[in-house]
Amino acid sequence: MPPTNPARRRALTDAAIDLLASSGVHGLTHRAVEKAADLPPGTASNYFRTREALLVATAERIIELHHADTDQAVKRPATLVDLLTESLLTAATTLRTRYLAIFELQLEAARRPVLAAALACLQDKASLVTAGHHDELGLDIPREKIPAMIALYGGALFTLVSTPPEHVSRDVVRNLVEVIVYGCDPPA
Amino acid sequence: MPPTNPARRRALTDAAIDLLASSGVHGLTHRAVEKAADLPPGTASNYFRTREALLVATAERIIELHHADTDQAVKRPATLVDLLTESLLTAATTLRTRYLAIFELQLEAARRPVLAAALACLQDKASLVTAGHHDELGLDIPREKIPAMIALYGGALFTLVSTPPEHVSRDVVRNLVEVIVYGCDPPA
Repeated sequence: MPPTNPARRRALTDAAIDLLASSGVHGLTHRAVEKAADLPPGTASNYFRTREALLVATAERIIELHHADTDQAVKRPATLVDLLTESLLTAATTLRTRYLAIFELQLEAARRPVLAAALACLQDKASLVTAGHHDELGLDIPREKIPAMIALYGGALFTLVSTPPEHVSRDVVRNLVEVIVYGCDPPA
Repeated sequence: MPPTNPARRRALTDAAIDLLASSGVHGLTHRAVEKAADLPPGTASNYFRTREALLVATAERIIELHHADTDQAVKRPATLVDLLTESLLTAATTLRTRYLAIFELQLEAARRPVLAAALACLQDKASLVTAGHHDELGLDIPREKIPAMIALYGGALFTLVSTPPEHVSRDVVRNLVEVIVYGCDPPA
């Protein structure tokens, strides 16, 4: 039976996120992960038997962290433009490492069908969460626009995290968000 | 003096594009490139003295190919939505390898300042080309929206090339393009 200490599992996947951002997908090995998490040799392979299991668990951890943040964000009163601007700005600056890591995994998935299938499954669940937020916020945006909105939000985030950080400002982010929101729901 | 046979240089950078897409940035070495281009050992380092020079030259080649295509595309009469839909669909399907390669380089640039500087410079030139096309086409979209449009087009392309190809259809692409175009220039 694989070990199931949740705190240790989180320590390993959190170290994996940092490694993906700092060294790319090639730098993410069982050995590097347990070393970065300051755990004894063999720990990472006890939790994740294959490299693919490690990649998938890291993607799951990123999505879990992402949802924890968005669940909080939608509870604060704000216009949709304000909400998405803050969320995208934080993702591209304070949380840049996390999102660099998921984009590394997305490119790796183009070469690795098992990872691609796992990411597609996570994406489907994430879309349901987003549709739930959409209902909760009582948005005017038609439901059929949600997939385009998610795709453009994710794409804008890629552009932002791969831009030198000093060029990312609240104004730049707000301009992108306004195009997405008004494009989904043109103001009368 | 470095060798300057343009056909050989193109053969090397074209091989580099394929390698980036198939093996990731780690798979892009001088040896792998000259082997893939069927050229003798040492050829790649004659053309590109460092690994960074090889990465930068590959990025330049991708942008050159991209501009050759867009220069052709803007000559055909079409609405902006049609033009961008076709361009984005082709980029995400037929030319997927090329754009997977540039996104590999963009993530690598987050770890490599010399590459980041080179990409920023290419990006500035590309923005001027796009602004030129914008004038040529006599678009209604305000010029100050061009940077957001470029960022969202590039971001949408990342989302599309990192989506399993069977989920990319003309309808999916058109939905994204309509949001971008209407968001930049809401119809009256």
